Amino acid sequence: MKTDFVRINRKLLETFCKDVFKALNLSEEDADAAAVILVAADAIGISSHGVGRLWRYVNGLKTGLMLPDAKIEVLKETPSSIVINANGVMGAPVSVKTMEKVIEKAENNGSAFGCVKDSNHFGIAGYYAKMAAEKDMVGIAMTNTAALGVPTFGSRVMYGTNPLAFAIPANKEPMFVLDMATTVVTRGKIEIYEKLGKELPDGWAVDKKGLPARNAHEIIQQMDDRVGGGILPLGGRGKLFGGYKGFGLALLVDILCSVLCGAPFGDGVRDTKESSARVSHFFGAIKISSFRDPMDFKNDMDKMLSDLRKSPPAEDQERVLYAGLPEYEKEQESNKLGVPILKKIYENLCEIGKEYKIFFDIKI
Amino acid sequence: MKTDFVRINRKLLETFCKDVFKALNLSEEDADAAAVILVAADAIGISSHGVGRLWRYVNGLKTGLMLPDAKIEVLKETPSSIVINANGVMGAPVSVKTMEKVIEKAENNGSAFGCVKDSNHFGIAGYYAKMAAEKDMVGIAMTNTAALGVPTFGSRVMYGTNPLAFAIPANKEPMFVLDMATTVVTRGKIEIYEKLGKELPDGWAVDKKGLPARNAHEIIQQMDDRVGGGILPLGGRGKLFGGYKGFGLALLVDILCSVLCGAPFGDGVRDTKESSARVSHFFGAIKISSFRDPMDFKNDMDKMLSDLRKSPPAEDQERVLYAGLPEYEKEQESNKLGVPILKKIYENLCEIGKEYKIFFDIKI
Repeated sequence: MKTDFVRINRKLLETFCKDVFKALNLSEEDADAAAVILVAADAIGISSHGVGRLWRYVNGLKTGLMLPDAKIEVLKETPSSIVINANGVMGAPVSVKTMEKVIEKAENNGSAFGCVKDSNHFGIAGYYAKMAAEKDMVGIAMTNTAALGVPTFGSRVMYGTNPLAFAIPANKEPMFVLDMATTVVTRGKIEIYEKLGKELPDGWAVDKKGLPARNAHEIIQQMDDRVGGGILPLGGRGKLFGGYKGFGLALLVDILCSVLCGAPFGDGVRDTKESSARVSHFFGAIKISSFRDPMDFKNDMDKMLSDLRKSPPAEDQERVLYAGLPEYEKEQESNKLGVPILKKIYENLCEIGKEYKIFFDIKI
Repeated sequence: MKTDFVRINRKLLETFCKDVFKALNLSEEDADAAAVILVAADAIGISSHGVGRLWRYVNGLKTGLMLPDAKIEVLKETPSSIVINANGVMGAPVSVKTMEKVIEKAENNGSAFGCVKDSNHFGIAGYYAKMAAEKDMVGIAMTNTAALGVPTFGSRVMYGTNPLAFAIPANKEPMFVLDMATTVVTRGKIEIYEKLGKELPDGWAVDKKGLPARNAHEIIQQMDDRVGGGILPLGGRGKLFGGYKGFGLALLVDILCSVLCGAPFGDGVRDTKESSARVSHFFGAIKISSFRDPMDFKNDMDKMLSDLRKSPPAEDQERVLYAGLPEYEKEQESNKLGVPILKKIYENLCEIGKEYKIFFDIKI
């Protein structure tokens, strides 16, 4: 069977991306963080947030939309909190630094939270949540995004896909990692349906009148033209399937990321033709040992997660998965066989590499 | 027009419930908390959690399933955390005490969290979250419940409706209060469809094979008989509408409420014929002033919430609502005109009153 992807050694792929970032004037440390997080997305199977985005970052850094070496400022700090102004740097490196700080504070204080404003796309939220979970904490990470979500009963875009992530450690079982957009789908999914010329499922999007939208091309046009219409919250349109719940969660994420540190929110977060949106993030860590012996906790997590994994599947399904399990399995495979990269993305990486005289040392 | 409800002065209704609880050996303080929270549910329009449940509490206290005067134990305490063993007391009074403690700790520490195990139904989660929001904090409250939710791709009940609540203060606008079950609907909704003989919407429940269930009566039977089948998570069945997100949120709530303090979780939380399930709760508070001047924060919240409220509605809707707004409006109305109580529930209250010689001082 012909495959449309290649597998690349994880370390090699990270080094490639890191070298590109260094060529674009990121420090050794920042280039490393940005590369590791980009490749981590591909490794766990979230290719929408992986190296296929490298060209966007390169573009952002080349045009000055993202700043390779702006100074990160601490705007406010207490033993249990920190507020950072990223001043337009790349999202991933400043997010790693902030989460490290939050973890350190939680270690001393029991729990701690941090906000980052004026930042850029930070990759997969789950990565940061996992940093805390690896230290026996409940890890939390959220970000707002450019607005493309329509409120329950509404017709106009008023908030982003606003993902939230929680990571919680287990002992023998792969850890629980929930990393989810609070909209029912992301823009990427709508774009896939557009490419396939497929009708959208009822419950994904509404048109400029706030009525069900089934034409992917039209709805993307309407979102781009800002005439109303956009993606629905988790739970879909109206109240029947609880759309107001997803809408509420999306607002919660926006409030914690932006209102809490005085950053732009709602439809004030916008991509423009010249620039992707400056976004803000929220991080948190709660130390498990403040409540209970972490080993007992993790053994109970094992029981909960393995009970779920072994619970009888629906007649038309093979097995029950919990959040974090399929990503863990993908990552094991990627570490063993190499990270799967679509051939056309690999070619795009080679193009970028050529510009900076950075080449892959692999045979395809 | 004939109405099927009566309106009762809020204070009077609280006093009635309080007197009933006192007759059942609750302390003055506990009876007051239990009554206030029960009536608050009706006042904001969540009658499923209101005085219609009084008979269940009375029954629980009479049969000793809920204990009026068990001793609450502090199992573990740090400056930022507390773990309480409720030892089977009523849920509301112990939850108020725990949230007060969490707020006090957050005042000193920036943020704090608490767990309560071996507790009972605590009423509306949003009530506790609002206690913190009124002190310029982000307020958090969650509880697990008897299992009736089926995992994504699964066929068997493995978790509860597990509601989560977040309350965040504003200045002039009614505060943001998200209080939601993480299942797509609660059992109560399915029971309403059963009574009406109405077919369930596709996406609410699955049968014992894990396939879509449309017959409300059958699915309730299957849940009661524990043969498989149950309610779906927010996002519905499978992946198309993000059901794994609601499933993940339900697990998150269960973990924070129960695994964090060593309480029963998952399908270990069960109503029996003799007893409602002993459940556990999670409370949290994060002080806004650790991040930003609270007045600036609340002014920005006003802007966010009024922008949403004023955003153009869908063609078939009147206006856009945010979480907490309709409940606020109902509460204003209840405070002015009296709390609306269904006539048959009023009659049930009168029955209970007769048993304890406690009478309403109203003319219907």
